[in-house]
Amino acid sequence: MSSSQSRGTKRDEIVATATERFGRDGYEDTRWADIAADVGVGPTALYHYFESKQHCLYVIMDEAIEGFRSRFEELTAAGDEPLERLVAVMDDCFRLSERDIQRNRVLVAEQGLLSARSGSPREEQARQVARARTRDLEFAWASFLSHAMQQGAIPKHDPRLLTRAILGLYNSIWHWYRPNGIVALNRVAEFFTDRSLAMIGAGPDALERPRAAA
Amino acid sequence: MSSSQSRGTKRDEIVATATERFGRDGYEDTRWADIAADVGVGPTALYHYFESKQHCLYVIMDEAIEGFRSRFEELTAAGDEPLERLVAVMDDCFRLSERDIQRNRVLVAEQGLLSARSGSPREEQARQVARARTRDLEFAWASFLSHAMQQGAIPKHDPRLLTRAILGLYNSIWHWYRPNGIVALNRVAEFFTDRSLAMIGAGPDALERPRAAA
Repeated sequence: MSSSQSRGTKRDEIVATATERFGRDGYEDTRWADIAADVGVGPTALYHYFESKQHCLYVIMDEAIEGFRSRFEELTAAGDEPLERLVAVMDDCFRLSERDIQRNRVLVAEQGLLSARSGSPREEQARQVARARTRDLEFAWASFLSHAMQQGAIPKHDPRLLTRAILGLYNSIWHWYRPNGIVALNRVAEFFTDRSLAMIGAGPDALERPRAAA
Repeated sequence: MSSSQSRGTKRDEIVATATERFGRDGYEDTRWADIAADVGVGPTALYHYFESKQHCLYVIMDEAIEGFRSRFEELTAAGDEPLERLVAVMDDCFRLSERDIQRNRVLVAEQGLLSARSGSPREEQARQVARARTRDLEFAWASFLSHAMQQGAIPKHDPRLLTRAILGLYNSIWHWYRPNGIVALNRVAEFFTDRSLAMIGAGPDALERPRAAA
């Protein structure tokens, strides 16, 4: 996979257009040919980058998950204040552009497709890459939580199940959140950050005295 | 919609077979013709009950959501112990047969399809029915939570957002839970009930003294 460093390439244009269309019109209702037309590439050029709509979807998912993972690593890399880091990660998870929101919507609406083996080798490889990335993200979270538990910063629970609960709760938002809906993003962010911390056992009270627990 | 009281009919056989196949093989990978063959009905008889695979999916979702809603109403109908009722509802949500689990997996894997308007009037009507049922379930939860907050049994938060958080957390389980996976259902049930109560602000501590809060 080429990384997202190479901005402005045709490939990235296809990814951006597909994300926009999948998020707005739904994955099922988007025709692969329409994306080609939007970007202005012929079928042969399109095939050079992606075998199919599904192949492109897996790449979008992979890039989204890798984005979450790399920011998570960055924000939790150093220091000994697990609770502050946790809050920093959550703040970051809600600092979203319109495109990020579309991408999150695609990610959760179509996550079932990540479990379905594909008949095409190229699709199947892209699916495996995205799945491995999901496991990497889960592992990063579980390791961080486990470490925070050992430090006494948060109560002890199964770190892998807690990871699934945190990510599941976050993902659930993008099933119903609409950029121009009645609930504003900052209210969603505040509510879900607060409730996630309560679920972890590190509510606002705990945050005011992180050193007492360390 | 005929209710699920009329067990043993051809229609129910189709629903049961479709649930099994969608849950096991995935919705996308199941052919509508295979379900007809499994049940032993011809295309004309099949069409009498369901126009399409998608129509059948909407009916499966509708029945699942109605099951959750009616049990919720039953378990929260009377009495003045909101916390005990909350725990009873959660216990009930994890008392699942293999078929219930398959149904939950179908429900969450394909929930994106509930947001996509269908071109066929019959499909579209079934979709609308299932969506209305979802709103009924959410309303029942939000009303219950709001009442519990007024009684001082749980801390005050936006009851509609809290409903979405609780249902989102529960639904997230069925994206990864496998009946013969490494995590047993009773462990999942215990963990998620416990963490949901913490998220609500009614952890195990609160439960031991429900009267003190009333």
